[in-house]
Amino acid sequence: MTCSDAADPVLSPSPHLSSASTRTPSSTIRDLLRITESPEILSLAGGLPAPECLPTERVRAAADRALSVIGTCGPTALQYGPTEGIEALRATVAAGTPASPGLGRPEEVVITTGSQQGLALVAHALVDPGTVVAVEDPAYLGARQVFTGHGAHLVGIPVDVDGLCTEELARRLARGFRPAVVSCVPNFSNPSGTSLAASRRMRLAELAEHYGFVIVEDDPYHALSFCGPAPPTIGLVAPDRTVSLGSASKVIAPGLRVGWLHAPSWLLAPMVRAKQTLDLHTPTLNQLIVAEILNDSTFLGDHLESARDLYARRARTLHAAVGDFVDAAVPRGGKFLWGRTQVDTTQAWDRAVAAGVAYVPGESFFVDDRSDRWLRLSFATLDEAALTEAAGRLRSALTGDPICRWSAQNAPDGSHRPILR
Amino acid sequence: MTCSDAADPVLSPSPHLSSASTRTPSSTIRDLLRITESPEILSLAGGLPAPECLPTERVRAAADRALSVIGTCGPTALQYGPTEGIEALRATVAAGTPASPGLGRPEEVVITTGSQQGLALVAHALVDPGTVVAVEDPAYLGARQVFTGHGAHLVGIPVDVDGLCTEELARRLARGFRPAVVSCVPNFSNPSGTSLAASRRMRLAELAEHYGFVIVEDDPYHALSFCGPAPPTIGLVAPDRTVSLGSASKVIAPGLRVGWLHAPSWLLAPMVRAKQTLDLHTPTLNQLIVAEILNDSTFLGDHLESARDLYARRARTLHAAVGDFVDAAVPRGGKFLWGRTQVDTTQAWDRAVAAGVAYVPGESFFVDDRSDRWLRLSFATLDEAALTEAAGRLRSALTGDPICRWSAQNAPDGSHRPILR
Repeated sequence: MTCSDAADPVLSPSPHLSSASTRTPSSTIRDLLRITESPEILSLAGGLPAPECLPTERVRAAADRALSVIGTCGPTALQYGPTEGIEALRATVAAGTPASPGLGRPEEVVITTGSQQGLALVAHALVDPGTVVAVEDPAYLGARQVFTGHGAHLVGIPVDVDGLCTEELARRLARGFRPAVVSCVPNFSNPSGTSLAASRRMRLAELAEHYGFVIVEDDPYHALSFCGPAPPTIGLVAPDRTVSLGSASKVIAPGLRVGWLHAPSWLLAPMVRAKQTLDLHTPTLNQLIVAEILNDSTFLGDHLESARDLYARRARTLHAAVGDFVDAAVPRGGKFLWGRTQVDTTQAWDRAVAAGVAYVPGESFFVDDRSDRWLRLSFATLDEAALTEAAGRLRSALTGDPICRWSAQNAPDGSHRPILR
Repeated sequence: MTCSDAADPVLSPSPHLSSASTRTPSSTIRDLLRITESPEILSLAGGLPAPECLPTERVRAAADRALSVIGTCGPTALQYGPTEGIEALRATVAAGTPASPGLGRPEEVVITTGSQQGLALVAHALVDPGTVVAVEDPAYLGARQVFTGHGAHLVGIPVDVDGLCTEELARRLARGFRPAVVSCVPNFSNPSGTSLAASRRMRLAELAEHYGFVIVEDDPYHALSFCGPAPPTIGLVAPDRTVSLGSASKVIAPGLRVGWLHAPSWLLAPMVRAKQTLDLHTPTLNQLIVAEILNDSTFLGDHLESARDLYARRARTLHAAVGDFVDAAVPRGGKFLWGRTQVDTTQAWDRAVAAGVAYVPGESFFVDDRSDRWLRLSFATLDEAALTEAAGRLRSALTGDPICRWSAQNAPDGSHRPILR
């Protein structure tokens, strides 16, 4: 029998995409990054760490040693490992390091393939189509993307200088608002740069206990504070209601894709099952490398100190350089300056790229707020000279400064190619 | 206002798990692996590669070189990278290597965090609750787990010595059966060890074109053939209907978690969006390591030849050692011997563990077939002496051979501790 003999003539030659697929938005930032890969563009868009802060030689030594670890089934770095992560790294994360707070017991820690995977595991465990998830407004795009992909109904809670407005959340809860998850970046949030005040952390924990939601505390910038230690970790205040996510990406290297999470016991098994289906386990080689470096507190202390110094200098430089046309607080940590301009930053984006500079329009981050004048500038990647140059290009694009005015029309081929000064 | 002042007294203190979470089963094998980690148990359960086949020194050299690659944003190995994967590895995979068939153009290849993630991306893109997915019966557990987690209605298609019975599939299709996806392991399937005959590959491609389903060709064992090259890759026959998955896990090292997929263009964007939400990208260090080794055809050719020799010897040894109580074909590739016994292998499992040997009961793999006498034995991990010893323990557990009869009751503490001969 060949196919043409088939009795049933009703065919479905066009496969359907799943509903999860049609609702998963693309990441504006990862799409922008591709456009701004050209070396002629000075990019303030991505949150790439400063090349100077990537500890290549330390990783090389750790990789070399990792490859010498021999377990019962041969070289541990190259063999299959447990889904939860290798014991050495779980224990290190649980105990705390110069880069991250202690989080509890090793068996409550799961090693993830970057903290983005931590968000995916939370979404898998807790979000159904229609589940209400509250996020900061503006919110981290990676969180929006994964929660939306799982069909969450996202609700934005306003943010002020002390982070997510817990009293506004409390008012809505009192009126019947019932999120299953409240997700925030408590330290130097992306994009707003704000940190959640200590009293608001307590309040959020109290609300979670009372109303029965889960707090997602996504904390990759914990160690990148320019002004002393962070307020208490929410996971330590409300351990039964909080999933705390951490990452080696901002303190060692994002290319290793090693993160971790600490979760209450009732959530651990579902998240580990989900991780089995996603990638079996995080690469063993990378876990061993990160475990060694997190345990080298002499190296890590020095490394973090220079990283903080470098980022703090860059933050001040960028803030000063855009001060006359971007209204923003001086960043106190993290990687981003979040500011308000006089123009529609989405509309201005083409002009900026034509002038040889890229940023992320604020609109990408807003959930319910519809302000169009904000932008996110990363001070992490470029050195101070380049930041100053980038700020000049940005001024020309956003203010029409006649000294240096370029527009997409000036580009020889009419495309987004920048014209360099 | 404190929480106790809240106007709404209707609280929901117990968060709900998502429906995806409640339907995601745990992997029997990964659970078994934990039980059988004791060094006293000879495990035929996991598919761990032979420690002798993990190329530590080659990986060390590749890691060293990977850490010297400098891109526009510093050391490439440690920096964020594109979601689709680094260009060098996509091009290598597209062109084909001694370990894998050429698959098309680099832009049609996505690097994944192990080929398990490839399955997760397929499920994310194509499976909604209720979507019909046809799999081999018995089927690879990792595929079952991720499709079931997405709510698929799994249907098993019988397998014989030539792999998935395409004529049985054709009969069901003609009667109105409409799977969105047909998933198979075309070479040395896990667990059945069978390969899909060339004519059946053509037939499957023809049926996919006619009925509009997507073929998932999960091909990690491609290079582990003991009897010459594999039949044509389905993705080359029906490129618009096939997602082909490959992996460095079986030919270099599973601990690196590097796999890849080739997909038709209409499926690429949804899968890349899903990958953004899952882990942003596969670790850059690991991609560079794998790219270098896949491009070293002298090393890889020799490495694969010794791996095939070693696995072929072990397969023959195990086959001979269990020949009197397990009915099985001599494996022609891959890692597993799949055989039928005279007893219920699920019931016998405790006896086997008490006798100091572990395997995976066949029942774990069956979808619609309910045979209880099958088991999967891995010949990959243990050396020949240990395989022979393991076979003896298995004989005692399954046949009650009086020379060496142990049962759980013989264990001093009544637990699953093995008693060694």
